[in-house]
Amino acid sequence: MPTISKKGQLMPQSPIRKLVPYAEEAIKKGKTIYYLNIGQPDIKTPKIALDAVKIHSLDILAYTRSEGSEDYRKKIANYYRKNDIQVNHDDIIVTTGGSEALLFAFGSIMDMDDEIIIPEPFYANYNGFSTASGVNIVPVISKIEDNFALPPIEEFEKLITPKTKAILICNPGNPTGYLYSKEEIQKLAAIVKKHDLFLIADEVYREFAYDGNTHYSIMQEKGLEDYAIMIDSVSKRYSMCGARIGCLVSKNKQVIQTVLKFAQARLSPPTLAQIASEAALDTPQSYFDDVIEEYVERRNILIDELSKIEGVKVAKPKGAFYCIAELPVKNSDDFAQWLLEHFDVNKETVMVAPAGGFYSTPGVGLNQIRIAYVLNKNSLIKSVNIIKEALKVYKD
Amino acid sequence: MPTISKKGQLMPQSPIRKLVPYAEEAIKKGKTIYYLNIGQPDIKTPKIALDAVKIHSLDILAYTRSEGSEDYRKKIANYYRKNDIQVNHDDIIVTTGGSEALLFAFGSIMDMDDEIIIPEPFYANYNGFSTASGVNIVPVISKIEDNFALPPIEEFEKLITPKTKAILICNPGNPTGYLYSKEEIQKLAAIVKKHDLFLIADEVYREFAYDGNTHYSIMQEKGLEDYAIMIDSVSKRYSMCGARIGCLVSKNKQVIQTVLKFAQARLSPPTLAQIASEAALDTPQSYFDDVIEEYVERRNILIDELSKIEGVKVAKPKGAFYCIAELPVKNSDDFAQWLLEHFDVNKETVMVAPAGGFYSTPGVGLNQIRIAYVLNKNSLIKSVNIIKEALKVYKD
Repeated sequence: MPTISKKGQLMPQSPIRKLVPYAEEAIKKGKTIYYLNIGQPDIKTPKIALDAVKIHSLDILAYTRSEGSEDYRKKIANYYRKNDIQVNHDDIIVTTGGSEALLFAFGSIMDMDDEIIIPEPFYANYNGFSTASGVNIVPVISKIEDNFALPPIEEFEKLITPKTKAILICNPGNPTGYLYSKEEIQKLAAIVKKHDLFLIADEVYREFAYDGNTHYSIMQEKGLEDYAIMIDSVSKRYSMCGARIGCLVSKNKQVIQTVLKFAQARLSPPTLAQIASEAALDTPQSYFDDVIEEYVERRNILIDELSKIEGVKVAKPKGAFYCIAELPVKNSDDFAQWLLEHFDVNKETVMVAPAGGFYSTPGVGLNQIRIAYVLNKNSLIKSVNIIKEALKVYKD
Repeated sequence: MPTISKKGQLMPQSPIRKLVPYAEEAIKKGKTIYYLNIGQPDIKTPKIALDAVKIHSLDILAYTRSEGSEDYRKKIANYYRKNDIQVNHDDIIVTTGGSEALLFAFGSIMDMDDEIIIPEPFYANYNGFSTASGVNIVPVISKIEDNFALPPIEEFEKLITPKTKAILICNPGNPTGYLYSKEEIQKLAAIVKKHDLFLIADEVYREFAYDGNTHYSIMQEKGLEDYAIMIDSVSKRYSMCGARIGCLVSKNKQVIQTVLKFAQARLSPPTLAQIASEAALDTPQSYFDDVIEEYVERRNILIDELSKIEGVKVAKPKGAFYCIAELPVKNSDDFAQWLLEHFDVNKETVMVAPAGGFYSTPGVGLNQIRIAYVLNKNSLIKSVNIIKEALKVYKD
């Protein structure tokens, strides 16, 4: 019997996936589960986007250009210019989700055994993209005590080797909710220029900046044109995760030309989803105002309620819709499983994401969980209460 | 300035892409171009598929499961069972086009510098997927004189090394139109079992088998369960290339589990396109009967007309909608460019795909072109006439 690859063996399982059988078992037992574990918002997709595919007049569902349809790219460029990012459609490659944009970026700038420095905790699938690309993640630990701010720049500098090709940040961060300041972006800009590295910023949560803070994109930083690669997606912005439309943006022509070759090999991003995504760009500002207001209220409730629980430490997110909470448990993997298997309040329980999977350094973050505040306020209050009651009786 | 990767530099350009600027120039000069160069059929997508996305009742365009929605996979399994392929939905991972299925297969079974044997000429993007995956293609030449039949199995055996992990075929073949016989599949089955290799079959043209021939899938071959990986797609079957929905099918559980990890990292295949693809499975048989009749007529006209041109040699395709023609020219790259730049019949010219890009062995196939018979009969007759007239005056 032929064998699978080493790469295939090393590919990580989703940290949440392990819990799925326990969730299924809980449902069979008649329990209701509040899903705080995934980044699938309950927010409605803008009607304008959903309607666009209802009124299409296509006879043939044909390929678009590999780099995405020109009309759509022109409209995206326009969106960025409104957000003070000076790009045009030639600087944009439309991808099948932010995921593919990351894979194309990794392939275009890194070879086997090259290294990429990422502040941890980080989005767990960066592990998968790295393994698939044969490159190694070198983590820099950011701390809950610092609200997961950018670690001191000397910590990055210590880790740079001849194999280092890039620094990757997620801004605002999944799973931390941290929003980098302009000063932090400038520190990163200085270090990548000094060491001739790329700076990749996953900015898929760019619209979700709270408390009067504005998002500062790496694409706004003057002098960073040759170094900056931005990853974006419609998934979270318009609550259309299932579209699978993202993009890669760079002013570095060599990067764009190289990414285009990866894009050409897979022919085209999905056509129907591009139609929906193009229409989504006409979503009125009131939609975002409502969404932001909703998320801020949810965050405030969640953080307030979590903070009241004895022994729980929580960073206050300034963006995105996640937070990391430290619990008075030894191993949050075990705790998350136990919640599903053995605990309920009036037949209701919660599913959370153990945070170990968001760290690359072994043993770090084992007492933390990630909570996605993608449920309504009432459900969030009930969820936190379940966690509170559970911690009273849980023994590890 | 940071540098792009070696892999990125090695990523091949699409063999057709080089001609695009010349085509654009020709259009500016007022010429009409018959596009024989791409596999984008002019056949209408089944209405049932296009309508399915018009009547959706989604409020949130959400992720589906990473392996594809269960309903859709069950319906695909049902389709295969009707085609005498005994699989169930657990043997299927839905992918973003056949392209992603190939990338997942390569990643799951091959590491850096591993080798895959492919009869050439082959689908040009296999080069891109190999480069992206860091693996090497080892070609076996199939010949126009033999209609591009399977090369003698000893030719494969000679090329097997400890690095060889798989044999890949496209059946029916792009760019050859060759349909492998049951006996040929059995020869391949024997050799992969003997040497513990995977057999990957790209069967995206499976419905396009002509002249009373039936397609024999690697999934029908008894005893090949652990070795066989089938790649499929809705792109050609339902003329919905822009959906970007394909799948990977295998009875080898380790393969499926590994592919699933790659699938999880990119979260989900496109949701709207899965809705359209699921509906497409209810396309009535009359649609296919009409399409097959149309393609057979086109093929007959194309082959008849090409055969009449002095110095042109052509293989007779038994499937798909491509043929390779050998022309009395030294370099079909130059000829294809010249057709666009310098030749027309009543302001009409043609765009063909130079076949060099479909070979991995340098210098082979340089006097061949690939013609996709994706245009109506009248356009095909005019196109072949343009080639005939062009060859009368072309000097290389």
